[in-house]
Amino acid sequence: MRLDKKAIYPIQEWDITEDKFDRKHNYRNETTFSLSNGYIGTRGTFEEAYAFDIDTGLEGNFVNGFYEREKIRYGEANFGSPLFSQSLLNLPNLKETKLYIDGEEFDMEQGTMEDYQRTLHMKDGVLERKMVWRSPQGKRIKIEIKRLVSFEMKNIMSISYEVTPMNFSGEIRFVSRLQADVENHTRKTNPIVDYGPFGRKLEPEKLFGDEKRLYYKGITQNSRLTVACGSAHKIVSEDAVVETSTEVGELDAALTLKITGCEGKKITLEKMICYSTSLDMAEEKLETFVEQTLYAAEEKGYLKLEQAQKRYMQSFWNVADIEIRGEESASLQQGIRFNLFHVLQSAGRDGRTGMGAKGLSGEGYEGHYFWDTEMYVLPVFVYTEPEVARKLLDFRYSTLDQARARARILGHEKGALYPWRTINGEEASTYYPLGTAQYHINADIAYALSLYLQVTGDTGYLKEKGAEMFIETARVWADVGSFAKNKDGKYCICCVTGPDEYNVLVDNNFYTNLMARENLKDAVAAVAYLSEKEPELFERLKEKLGFSEDELELWKRIIDNMYFPYDEERDVYPMDDGFMMRKPWDESKIPEEKRAWLYENYHPLFIMRHRMSKQADAILGMYLHSNLFEEDEIRRNYDFYQEVTLHHSSLSTCIFGIVACDIGYYDEAYRYFAESARMDLDDHHNNFYAGIHAANMAGTWQAIVNGFAGVRCQQSALKFKPWLPKRWERYSFKMRFRGSLLKVEVSKGQARFVLEEGDSIRFFISGKEVMIHEKGGEYIEKI
Amino acid sequence: MRLDKKAIYPIQEWDITEDKFDRKHNYRNETTFSLSNGYIGTRGTFEEAYAFDIDTGLEGNFVNGFYEREKIRYGEANFGSPLFSQSLLNLPNLKETKLYIDGEEFDMEQGTMEDYQRTLHMKDGVLERKMVWRSPQGKRIKIEIKRLVSFEMKNIMSISYEVTPMNFSGEIRFVSRLQADVENHTRKTNPIVDYGPFGRKLEPEKLFGDEKRLYYKGITQNSRLTVACGSAHKIVSEDAVVETSTEVGELDAALTLKITGCEGKKITLEKMICYSTSLDMAEEKLETFVEQTLYAAEEKGYLKLEQAQKRYMQSFWNVADIEIRGEESASLQQGIRFNLFHVLQSAGRDGRTGMGAKGLSGEGYEGHYFWDTEMYVLPVFVYTEPEVARKLLDFRYSTLDQARARARILGHEKGALYPWRTINGEEASTYYPLGTAQYHINADIAYALSLYLQVTGDTGYLKEKGAEMFIETARVWADVGSFAKNKDGKYCICCVTGPDEYNVLVDNNFYTNLMARENLKDAVAAVAYLSEKEPELFERLKEKLGFSEDELELWKRIIDNMYFPYDEERDVYPMDDGFMMRKPWDESKIPEEKRAWLYENYHPLFIMRHRMSKQADAILGMYLHSNLFEEDEIRRNYDFYQEVTLHHSSLSTCIFGIVACDIGYYDEAYRYFAESARMDLDDHHNNFYAGIHAANMAGTWQAIVNGFAGVRCQQSALKFKPWLPKRWERYSFKMRFRGSLLKVEVSKGQARFVLEEGDSIRFFISGKEVMIHEKGGEYIEKI
Repeated sequence: MRLDKKAIYPIQEWDITEDKFDRKHNYRNETTFSLSNGYIGTRGTFEEAYAFDIDTGLEGNFVNGFYEREKIRYGEANFGSPLFSQSLLNLPNLKETKLYIDGEEFDMEQGTMEDYQRTLHMKDGVLERKMVWRSPQGKRIKIEIKRLVSFEMKNIMSISYEVTPMNFSGEIRFVSRLQADVENHTRKTNPIVDYGPFGRKLEPEKLFGDEKRLYYKGITQNSRLTVACGSAHKIVSEDAVVETSTEVGELDAALTLKITGCEGKKITLEKMICYSTSLDMAEEKLETFVEQTLYAAEEKGYLKLEQAQKRYMQSFWNVADIEIRGEESASLQQGIRFNLFHVLQSAGRDGRTGMGAKGLSGEGYEGHYFWDTEMYVLPVFVYTEPEVARKLLDFRYSTLDQARARARILGHEKGALYPWRTINGEEASTYYPLGTAQYHINADIAYALSLYLQVTGDTGYLKEKGAEMFIETARVWADVGSFAKNKDGKYCICCVTGPDEYNVLVDNNFYTNLMARENLKDAVAAVAYLSEKEPELFERLKEKLGFSEDELELWKRIIDNMYFPYDEERDVYPMDDGFMMRKPWDESKIPEEKRAWLYENYHPLFIMRHRMSKQADAILGMYLHSNLFEEDEIRRNYDFYQEVTLHHSSLSTCIFGIVACDIGYYDEAYRYFAESARMDLDDHHNNFYAGIHAANMAGTWQAIVNGFAGVRCQQSALKFKPWLPKRWERYSFKMRFRGSLLKVEVSKGQARFVLEEGDSIRFFISGKEVMIHEKGGEYIEKI
Repeated sequence: MRLDKKAIYPIQEWDITEDKFDRKHNYRNETTFSLSNGYIGTRGTFEEAYAFDIDTGLEGNFVNGFYEREKIRYGEANFGSPLFSQSLLNLPNLKETKLYIDGEEFDMEQGTMEDYQRTLHMKDGVLERKMVWRSPQGKRIKIEIKRLVSFEMKNIMSISYEVTPMNFSGEIRFVSRLQADVENHTRKTNPIVDYGPFGRKLEPEKLFGDEKRLYYKGITQNSRLTVACGSAHKIVSEDAVVETSTEVGELDAALTLKITGCEGKKITLEKMICYSTSLDMAEEKLETFVEQTLYAAEEKGYLKLEQAQKRYMQSFWNVADIEIRGEESASLQQGIRFNLFHVLQSAGRDGRTGMGAKGLSGEGYEGHYFWDTEMYVLPVFVYTEPEVARKLLDFRYSTLDQARARARILGHEKGALYPWRTINGEEASTYYPLGTAQYHINADIAYALSLYLQVTGDTGYLKEKGAEMFIETARVWADVGSFAKNKDGKYCICCVTGPDEYNVLVDNNFYTNLMARENLKDAVAAVAYLSEKEPELFERLKEKLGFSEDELELWKRIIDNMYFPYDEERDVYPMDDGFMMRKPWDESKIPEEKRAWLYENYHPLFIMRHRMSKQADAILGMYLHSNLFEEDEIRRNYDFYQEVTLHHSSLSTCIFGIVACDIGYYDEAYRYFAESARMDLDDHHNNFYAGIHAANMAGTWQAIVNGFAGVRCQQSALKFKPWLPKRWERYSFKMRFRGSLLKVEVSKGQARFVLEEGDSIRFFISGKEVMIHEKGGEYIEKI
């Protein structure tokens, strides 16, 4: 834990501010200041388009779901290893806007920067840069640039570029460029993969520019996806005599806008940028779509887009924000909001895209979607923006066919096996011990679905899509294991990898077996619900899936007989059958610089033969299904895993923090929370340049809501067990539950619950049932 | 088992004969008729150099240890994965000798073949082809071609090409070619690897021809090894007016020899071919060496080389042959001799090369050396040609430094870890679950060393090299595992793969734990021997290895506390801790054509989660260390493994056959033996084209000697437990033991032991001690 780590940015409640441009921190800051709306993602690069090398910066523009594929080469191929990669592709950049004043190019590293401030306004969803610059020739100019990626118009990013000559009048020239000679930084951001994309992968199909617009359409070499993008420009000024000229090259196009600037008078360039792809519409419709969308955005203008952005953000923060007050609260408050802001930005919202482990903030993990979405991010949305949660589940539903095909490859005659990592729904993990072997992905998705259904009460979703997902995931659990005589006939699941990536291909991973059982329970319940309430629909589903009632009997037998590894001496659940036999870990033999990078520095066999754990695994299961364990039991296990867990994954500390709360280890819980809250903002893992850690970011919200306030939704009951960290005066948050909106405020000695929306709500506090019977009603519990 | 499979070649005691050329069987027959002396290997291709495609034939010429390397690409690289491949490289072909009679090219597929016979004379080590051919124009000619790869001159292959015009006189023209435009058939013979070598990998450095010789020197693109080869030609005829001409191209050179042939008069072309490489001498010495060696061979002439070859073979067969008489004996006799012949051919004899799993007969497994050498082949040599056994051990000793470096990569601070597959001593396995994880290779090498020492009594070898090997291998065993509290403090070895390739990365593989313990015992004994008998030498070794006596204490503790998995219900040793929990295997669900090719048709996770075994694993351990188990215990385990073993490896049946003898399952033993004996000759696995299965071939010898005759050498005692299959009248074999040569003849009712060399010998028959006190003395035991 690195509570001692100095804050990188000034502590501000709603802003992240950089007050000096420093090339050395550029790569990391590009992630910090990245913007996204879940569809377009753009890194926090500069309009001046400085040349950075592979270690100092990455101009990155992405569209969720848009990937290039490459043939994967294997030293030795296995049956069923993915043949093609999927990598989120870096797309043409349209932000570039160079400024020339009387022929002198604006460059932050030339002349004198008299004033500089770049601020991410998290409350508003806007990135702003304010500068006063003196050119080498002595001309002073005020520059204010604002940028947003619109939540209102998903295809639009917009820039407002204001300049005010301060001590001169003269020519102001903007050169706006569309740069399509772009490539991924695969060697830097995904150094362990050896298949690219290397070099430019988009083949231009059309490139043009006129006096207002730039436009590009290109197709990927291998995945054959088409992206279209364009920009539209407007100068807003009192004396709008604008001279324009256009230059079109093979891979870039530039539009020059010249105007005479007068001392003290502001000139604004408004630039709209639009992206769309053949994943959204027929390829031949793209050009018209881009043109019309740019036109609509222009009509609206930057200001209205900004206002809409603020409204969207306001409504988001109104529910999702967590307010804290007290000692240390300012820095933690900033960390929480930074995390929530990026989580909000990252989630796909169209039902056809998921959410990358790094959102759309960078190229890390090749832009893949993992379990991070379901286990870390989705619960936050379930309670705050259930519509977004539903769309993320829709993505999984929409890829059921790929998951079915994958299950066949793995030898399952029925059911669906979701891919460990993917963009298009097919498995993209090239190293199966850390990839496909993580069968728990199936149960993770089922868990998130179940949580969504319990919290929202959306039975329509269960009928339409949920039941099918429960059944298809459950079927794989019913086939992958067997009842073992030598384990008293218990159901054992062998040769899988649990969440913990340092213990691979193990037998009876505790987390997997637990989650598989709950997946099966949910499937049994879904079948019971459908057969009772919707017999016709159920018959149709049975026919579609070739489902027979015999399967139910098997599922129930597995549920009743699931095996769990147990260690008599420590009275705990070891991570798997072999865990207690492994070689004790001697951290002192590992040089400090290698500690967090074991796979980069040690052979997998060395890692897996040691008794240690990378991250929360069994503990995660005990958090999610805490109702199935005694507090003492959880405490014993927590103590045990505390000893053996290295927290080398960013997904670990937030979970330990939550469980620490459950068992009253409050000091520890607080430390874990604090570690999680500022992990990315202070770049604890030194790899923020490659993109955000969305899971941990969402985990922070969980650490307070599910940890400090003890929230659980289990068997459809909403439960609390509030606690206030001793340095704090209070914290408050809101949550949606079955159409209601509940505000929770925990302060010294009490927890106050206010029903802000909805007619009534029922919940439990430390086991005691509470009802609020009317909107505006409140309940106070002494704590 | 395929006892029903029809014999491919006529049943002959000492010969393998093809009586018709058929393109369809060519690829397989090239392996059958391949020749080698452990240094040069050449496939049984024809002098006419027919054009075959990748599915019908492979002109192959190899030199043991000569490899090309390629950069290996991994979908996702692991730390410690080999960066470069090693592939036995296909070298320039010099056998090509086209024959023209009055301008008509001799071609077996043109004209009429009036008589055809190709025979591998296993007794003599010579391949012979006899034909009478009528050309399309009606000219009849008798052709006799003999070929040998000399055991006397390791760099020499020789061809005698005799022609006799039968109904004409006219021009006889030989065109002898050196063809350097050669490449490996990687896509065919090693389809799962994706790194080549693809295309020609030798860059020519010199190529010339004169009126007698052709010469080539070339260097590999990546491994930077140089091969030099040449041929020398002489026409032997009554009227030796020979006209010659030479053509030298970029990658080939041809020498034409013309002579007038007379009806009824024989003309012989004697051709000597020499190979040498920079692995044997400085690169600049190669040309002179090839020239001088060719000169020496030519001086000798083909006949003398053939005589020497026969002498060598006679001396080999005198000791190594197994004679059997009785029902079915002819076909089994042929199978045994075929197997022994190829085993003899395959072993490296210079101490710097090992033995490929496919010998030098083809490109399968990239020509790599595996444990096959130590566990299957070396025991045969230990008892028959101990000098060859020693040279094979020398190869391992010579690569100790590479094994030490590998151990460091795997995180062991001390000791050596031998590579699972290699040519140059470095690990070449690209898929660690089936490669590096097979730590048992260390114990296998130690076992072979121990057997060699026990059988030969060569204490000099123990002092010079053996002790160091024992200590260095043992050190890895002492580090890889740990004493596990939850297993009563027993020593557990986790996350390794045993011999069985369908159960990977398991905990406590029975075979591995057993063999590791014996490895440690041998190391303790070696240390005790040295410290007592050779204290000075021991001090030097301690210093060299940084060895401390503390290590001994740990070794002894491990020996006393090794853990073995045990199943109470079946009273057996399961293959590993997880084996009994795995999903029962349902063979009926596997289409027949996929059964022997599981990895090609099923995902590794599917294979490993099932309770079944590819091959002998625990059972192999019980054979090697049968003295440590009760007969009943072995029987229970045999029964158990009989149920779950699929015998998908060619290394399996011979071992089951041996253990079946131990426990009196004689019918089964006989069936397994018969299956092993003709496995390659009748191509049971349908992959003989890629090369021999050297391990099974040697396993056949073991099946009779260690199986039927019950031979073991354990704790330095030589033991027998002879049995005669009921269909046989008798069988006999010889074996060397501590300088003596013992003949063993088992016939109806008795076993006869004759001391053919040596002054006395002590051994045990079914536990009873026997001494023969003088050369020529015999002992008869009723059975």
